[in-house]
Amino acid sequence: MLATVLYGARDVRFEARADPTIMKPTDAIIRLSVTCICGSDLWPYRGTPPVRQPMAMGHEYCGIVEEVGRDVKSIRPGQFVIGSFCISDDTCVICQHGYQSRCVQGEFMSGAQAPLLRVPLADGTLVATSEVPSSNMLPDLLAVSDVLGTGWFAADAANVGPGSSVVVVGDGAVGLLGVLSARQMGAERIIAMSGHAPRQKLALEFGATDIVTERGDEGVARIKELTNGLGADSVLECVGTQQSMQQAIKSTRPGGWLGYVGVPHGVSFDGGEMFAAEIHLHGGPAPVRRFLPHLIDLVLDGKIHPGKVFDLTLPLAQVAEGYRAMDERRAIKTLLTP
Amino acid sequence: MLATVLYGARDVRFEARADPTIMKPTDAIIRLSVTCICGSDLWPYRGTPPVRQPMAMGHEYCGIVEEVGRDVKSIRPGQFVIGSFCISDDTCVICQHGYQSRCVQGEFMSGAQAPLLRVPLADGTLVATSEVPSSNMLPDLLAVSDVLGTGWFAADAANVGPGSSVVVVGDGAVGLLGVLSARQMGAERIIAMSGHAPRQKLALEFGATDIVTERGDEGVARIKELTNGLGADSVLECVGTQQSMQQAIKSTRPGGWLGYVGVPHGVSFDGGEMFAAEIHLHGGPAPVRRFLPHLIDLVLDGKIHPGKVFDLTLPLAQVAEGYRAMDERRAIKTLLTP
Repeated sequence: MLATVLYGARDVRFEARADPTIMKPTDAIIRLSVTCICGSDLWPYRGTPPVRQPMAMGHEYCGIVEEVGRDVKSIRPGQFVIGSFCISDDTCVICQHGYQSRCVQGEFMSGAQAPLLRVPLADGTLVATSEVPSSNMLPDLLAVSDVLGTGWFAADAANVGPGSSVVVVGDGAVGLLGVLSARQMGAERIIAMSGHAPRQKLALEFGATDIVTERGDEGVARIKELTNGLGADSVLECVGTQQSMQQAIKSTRPGGWLGYVGVPHGVSFDGGEMFAAEIHLHGGPAPVRRFLPHLIDLVLDGKIHPGKVFDLTLPLAQVAEGYRAMDERRAIKTLLTP
Repeated sequence: MLATVLYGARDVRFEARADPTIMKPTDAIIRLSVTCICGSDLWPYRGTPPVRQPMAMGHEYCGIVEEVGRDVKSIRPGQFVIGSFCISDDTCVICQHGYQSRCVQGEFMSGAQAPLLRVPLADGTLVATSEVPSSNMLPDLLAVSDVLGTGWFAADAANVGPGSSVVVVGDGAVGLLGVLSARQMGAERIIAMSGHAPRQKLALEFGATDIVTERGDEGVARIKELTNGLGADSVLECVGTQQSMQQAIKSTRPGGWLGYVGVPHGVSFDGGEMFAAEIHLHGGPAPVRRFLPHLIDLVLDGKIHPGKVFDLTLPLAQVAEGYRAMDERRAIKTLLTP
């Protein structure tokens, strides 16, 4: 098959790779219906950290099961399945606590920007739909695999609930779907921080009640004005830089919640500052598997349309252009069709 | 009156100070029944941070109301009252969220190592008992004011509940009362980290099920052995150093909770490490006022005896010796009788 490999900063190649095969009896092989590029893929694409050896890219996936290993019980060839970017047995103590992203057998997926994918621990990792969905639903269903699941976890970690005031830091696809998630969870006020008109528009469509265009201290001052001078109940940090984290911390009211899902790059928290801020802090790789059944239902019931974050669709063979478009912020998120 | 003033590192003086008076109509003056020295008093006592001007010491208090300002409604002269080390109006939005430690009118108490004390915002800050308690209950009731309230908050912030596995880092009075709190909240396993025999004994008396004497990485390895290799559900950090915080982080299972109440000194959290650990983090100055009514009831009903942390009692005039004994770890906590 032809698949996506990152060789170094801005060096994405679409090249011949061996077709994946069943390596363990708990594996499945799936034929991807659609795949896509993640905001987090831009970190190595931009050289942070530098790529030391060729990396098979892609970790968001949905598709049709081609083959399963002999120990796979609940997944069958022909089913349409969605999985998370973290594989999980879904049975260990940590999975049972809802942290399938930290499964004792867990590892991160890779190689999904390709026509075929090997999924380890298929029974624990994959969720099958009862029927093969129509093709117009594929972008929404693919979004569930990571970008929606991650935005949802940010809102969950930030304790969003009915009546909450919410700030979303970051107008990437995850931040935008954080807005959608907060709306689904019943937030009353959702303030999206964005200086980009098309992203503002999508934020409003997903349920934002206010847009703040200022950043840094000015952004924080504006948030305080909108929240009685106190800060928001819940803040979602969906970027991962020191500046965005500071903005998030200062936008949270005392006793409030900060959920962070932007992979931290050069971020540190000062203990004294955190003590004084007295906020709840929780984040990490999203345990998407916990949310998959609910999010798939919301999509299949037509209640949410997270696939709207895909504003560029390209054939998989043009994956390099997909990266460029996201890197240059010409696209929010690129859908790839194998 | 004669009261306690810190002039510099290890320079505690008991000297003449003006009696406190009603300065605002919301103030009360109370005559302290007992008072004490806090573990956090040892930070400035040891010169961290250096004392720049004489500091009136003491922030834990209970006693009889002598006088109230004209706007005080619920507190009357003659009542026995207990307050928190943070004053609070108990009515603002932040107080209503349970964070009286961050009341919009809040400030920290000081000057309680004295016979008389001015308490601002008396209606919001103080809780009166229905009768004046017997003198043998005074140590237990005084402990509620900060050291128990803080240990309780650590357990609350760490989400301790029925069946939890708990680690307590720190064998000072707060850590020991964190053990007591975890027991009251129904924890199944409570692992106290302590290398000091008298403190181990008290930890066991308060409900610890296991003692770990190792520190640092060895301590963490021991905790992992006791918790199926995963770490505890809930960890209470009651020290405030980088080493103790690292120990606490590494002792928490993925998806678990770390409650920290040790005032951080030189502590920083690495964003990438926290993201990978995927734990919940919450801490700060304890909102003791939230817990006061419940904790006072537990004491008055004879269900808990937090006053056992006082293993040295001195006349207030010997306050300097009280500091020395705690600094040299000859005493866990010093009770002072005015």
